[in-house]
Order: sequence, then structure tokens, then C-alpha cells
Amino acid sequence: MSGPDAIAKQFVDFYYNQFDNDRSQLASLYRESSMLSWESSPFQGSTAIVEKLTTLPFQKVLHKVSTIDAQPSSPTVASLLVSVSGLLVVDDSEHPLQFSQVFQLIPDGGSYYVLNDIFRLIYG
Amino acid sequence: MSGPDAIAKQFVDFYYNQFDNDRSQLASLYRESSMLSWESSPFQGSTAIVEKLTTLPFQKVLHKVSTIDAQPSSPTVASLLVSVSGLLVVDDSEHPLQFSQVFQLIPDGGSYYVLNDIFRLIYG
Repeated sequence: MSGPDAIAKQFVDFYYNQFDNDRSQLASLYRESSMLSWESSPFQGSTAIVEKLTTLPFQKVLHKVSTIDAQPSSPTVASLLVSVSGLLVVDDSEHPLQFSQVFQLIPDGGSYYVLNDIFRLIYG
Repeated sequence: MSGPDAIAKQFVDFYYNQFDNDRSQLASLYRESSMLSWESSPFQGSTAIVEKLTTLPFQKVLHKVSTIDAQPSSPTVASLLVSVSGLLVVDDSEHPLQFSQVFQLIPDGGSYYVLNDIFRLIYG
């Protein structure tokens, strides 16, 4: 992996592919310090976050990513701020929902974990 | 100021009020290390960022904030991740634009500066 944009793209592809196929497997991306704000509701720690994600009331979901932006988020650590916008197709609905999601990725060994995760639906 | 939500609200109110009234005054919120991604174009440092903001091709602008989310962004420093969504009314247009913006705020004396700033229009 190289610059922020490439790392962000790789993370976003991996994350939504995992989310759309089996979101219970996302647990390994979070730690006990991780925070999720899901439509304004706060969750802390891998267990609580994945419980929230796996109990969302849909069977089938597809993220279609429109934009990815990335910036280094610390002068001292190779952490990354990643902002995503796109469409969420829920249970094969013909009316995709706009979403916005922000992650902060923290380096950990040769990989990253998600410290911050903020998800919002955008209503037009 | 108290918790993340209150600080974020206070910052967002101040930032967009300043932006909508005289965006040249936003310079004091940025430092040389600050980064702006504006519709995918990168700018670094207070001078370059404010030059970009002040040369945006509109005379009159109004931000109508719909959602604000905030999370602490570091285990060691009182920095904050702030995610905003809302509507942008440009030159009194009857067709507001959806936007999404993310800030990372870093404490500095009794105040904060903006290290990260990512702005995107969201097209429905």
C-alpha cells in the first residue's frame, strides 16, 4: 500500500464488500476504543458496534461508493481520515438511499483498525 | 465548552456563520499543517485554503446544517472529529445543494484549529 488515497480506496473496497457479504466479520476492524455513531446513536467497542451492524433491519445490502477522500489525520502517526459518500441499496429497493460515512484509521502492525466511524443517511 | 457534541455545535455554528458572512476571516482557524479537500482538490496551509475558499465562484452563500456528529479522535489529545451534513444555498438559488463536510479539530491554547477539512457536494 502507498499513499493515503490508495490506502483509503483499499480499505473502503474491503470494508463495504465485507459489510455487504457478511457484516459480522467486521469485528476484526474495530477495537475496544472504537466508536460508532450510527444515525446519531453512539456505540463503543468492537462487540457493541458489530452487534449494532448485524441487527440492522435489512437482509440484503449493497453499498455503491460515489466518492472517497483521504487525508493524514496526525502529524506523528500514519493515521488516516477517510470520508465516503455513496448509495445504499437495501433489500433490492428501487430507491437507493444517499449515505455519508467517515472513518479514522489507526495503523496497527501492518494493518489498520477503525477508531472513529460516523454514518449518516442524507435525505434530499 | 463541555462535551464533544457541545464543542462541535459551537464550532459548526461559528464556522458557517463566518463562512457565510466573510469567509476571508476563516484564516485564523487553519494552520500551515491544515489540509483541505474541496470537491477532491487538495490545498495545504492557511493561505492556500483561504485563497481557495474566497475565490469560490459565488457572491452569496448560506449553509443550512441538517446533522452534526462528533467523536473524540485521539486517545491522548482532546481532538475532535466533526461530521456535518446540510444544504448549501448559493446566490439565492431555489435549488439548494446537499453537502457533506468533515473536520478534525485540534486543541490549541483554549481554542481549536482545523487540521483536516473535507468538503463534498452530494448529488442525488
